[in-house]
Amino acid sequence: MRFLHTADWHIGKKLHGFDLVEEQNAAFEQVKKIALEQKVDAVVIAGDLYDRALPSEAAVEQLNQMIIELNLKLGKPILAISGNHDSAARLDTGHEWFKATQYFLTTNLAEAIQPVEFEDTQFFLLPYFQPYQARNLFEDASLNDIETALKRIVEEMETKFDPKKKHVLVAHFFVAGSSKTDSETKIEVGGLNAVPDKLLQDFDYVALGHLHNKDALRQERIKYSGSLLKFSTSEADLQKGVWIVDTDPFKCIFVPVIPLHDLIVLTKSYQELISPEMFNQISPESYVAVKLTDKAIIPDVMNNLRNYYPRIISLERAYGREKNEIDRENVNLDLDPMQLLANFFHEITDEELSAEQKKWAAESLSKLEKERGL
Amino acid sequence: MRFLHTADWHIGKKLHGFDLVEEQNAAFEQVKKIALEQKVDAVVIAGDLYDRALPSEAAVEQLNQMIIELNLKLGKPILAISGNHDSAARLDTGHEWFKATQYFLTTNLAEAIQPVEFEDTQFFLLPYFQPYQARNLFEDASLNDIETALKRIVEEMETKFDPKKKHVLVAHFFVAGSSKTDSETKIEVGGLNAVPDKLLQDFDYVALGHLHNKDALRQERIKYSGSLLKFSTSEADLQKGVWIVDTDPFKCIFVPVIPLHDLIVLTKSYQELISPEMFNQISPESYVAVKLTDKAIIPDVMNNLRNYYPRIISLERAYGREKNEIDRENVNLDLDPMQLLANFFHEITDEELSAEQKKWAAESLSKLEKERGL
Repeated sequence: MRFLHTADWHIGKKLHGFDLVEEQNAAFEQVKKIALEQKVDAVVIAGDLYDRALPSEAAVEQLNQMIIELNLKLGKPILAISGNHDSAARLDTGHEWFKATQYFLTTNLAEAIQPVEFEDTQFFLLPYFQPYQARNLFEDASLNDIETALKRIVEEMETKFDPKKKHVLVAHFFVAGSSKTDSETKIEVGGLNAVPDKLLQDFDYVALGHLHNKDALRQERIKYSGSLLKFSTSEADLQKGVWIVDTDPFKCIFVPVIPLHDLIVLTKSYQELISPEMFNQISPESYVAVKLTDKAIIPDVMNNLRNYYPRIISLERAYGREKNEIDRENVNLDLDPMQLLANFFHEITDEELSAEQKKWAAESLSKLEKERGL
Repeated sequence: MRFLHTADWHIGKKLHGFDLVEEQNAAFEQVKKIALEQKVDAVVIAGDLYDRALPSEAAVEQLNQMIIELNLKLGKPILAISGNHDSAARLDTGHEWFKATQYFLTTNLAEAIQPVEFEDTQFFLLPYFQPYQARNLFEDASLNDIETALKRIVEEMETKFDPKKKHVLVAHFFVAGSSKTDSETKIEVGGLNAVPDKLLQDFDYVALGHLHNKDALRQERIKYSGSLLKFSTSEADLQKGVWIVDTDPFKCIFVPVIPLHDLIVLTKSYQELISPEMFNQISPESYVAVKLTDKAIIPDVMNNLRNYYPRIISLERAYGREKNEIDRENVNLDLDPMQLLANFFHEITDEELSAEQKKWAAESLSKLEKERGL
């Protein structure tokens, strides 16, 4: 069979305060068109349908409408799971009814074990989960991390494998070795750690959600679809789209989705940015992230640039290390606060704290400690 | 046909901080039992399924489970509408799928005009609405209040009347002449005004939601079902339950629902309340509203009473006028603030402001006005 693999729609998301309703609807229209042109037998949505556990009414209406169009109007079967951004309980509403029209939605672990059967393929829909849910389900206190929990879940799934069919896993987690962008919640911190890809090798295809880069993982049969839109500056150069997967014989091609309004990074000087040759090239509806090459102070630069780029979403200095580039994972939290501060200052400014700055910092830290009763 | 008429479940509601999950589940179990014993052909839920537009995850799971049991497990058709406490958009999720199992849920006005057809009865499911929705639907700018809007809606419904069938309206509003309790949102203020009952006379039965007293309106064929639980002290003496309605020949009987834990008002002195003969009579799980007959000051009385009545929900003095009794609708807001305050003081204490109290009040009012720049 042939299916379309997408994920991370994040309906309801805003980009630095800008509503993305139009962009999301335009991307969805393309997904529909691709599904029809490619004559897919099903559409897989691998989690994070919503951006928030508590989506707004408008977001609820928007997603409901999309699912209605895809499933009820176009008649495409849907295979979906909840991601870490979704509220499993809220997303679950109505799911017992959805099966009647082949809209298969799984938000709880117990249901993940039962495959959804197609003529030549079994789909296992594994929602985002925490280890405690696996401990409860299997009544096994040893399932303390995501790796041991997933190992147990996959073993259980394999008992249901029909040898005459292909086996597809739909899941939402971080696979070890993947590369990240800035717009994904770092869910592996405090709960969901990286999953080793060796646990996934028995499936004919693994349709992943969570990471927004389709090339986050370089494997033939274990893939992130990536998001449909660029949700952060670090995604500016990524190609967005969906995978079209044939299960037998296996084939996987990427079909691009073109953003209605692009996200563009401009690394320029202020004078270049405000020259007509420059700003006339950029649609006023594009989302623009500016990396300013100037070193001098420019008064009210963000507001001034907004006159030329109405949808400016961020402003950074190209020289001087950026906040985003700090390797958060390698911060040694065992250092004392003064040393942490000194390191941070150095990271940001490439300079050392002066004697006077050290004195101010020491005073502030000591005041804080007193307030906290330390 | 025979149907069960209920409304105002208010799933997720708390009673002065106490969770009502257990009470709501127990009431629901009785509704299920009544539906089976009475062999009803359908269950009508006339709005306010949830207590809030944004119900908690637990409330969402609880209501979903109830609907699944009633509709999918017992196989009872459901006819439901959104009330003023529900978010139409959120409640609507999945409704296109629900029809397949005869769960008919209407949250928008356009769908209200189309009857749901049963063998001998047509149901018109009219959700809670605002006049602007009728203006938009009918493109008629003259529909400025609820009365003219409803008149127009009913005219439209009547064009769909099948003369061979009975006609039932399910709606959620305040019908003129009904008596209120304290736990209903006063929706007629600022938008939804009272509906004259003459607009409803062409229906064989009108199944109403909104008011929590089954006897709020004394009409044979236009009835509130009332809520399933007592949600305020003013409901302590009301009988709760559901109507069982036969459409042909018309018959309407009330079947009580017994609260798992009752709400009791005790009008007693402190000494009486803390005597074993008294508190031993009252289950520690009952919700107790105390009207204290003492006039003297009793230190820390609420906390002391909680030792005997763990679920005490309110404490008032039986003598001295109560806040609830003030006739809010007759407050003249055109008076100046000082006069309003003096009237209020009189309402509460039956005394006049002293010269010194007047001076303090004048100082506070003048300070407030300055802060607001008046």
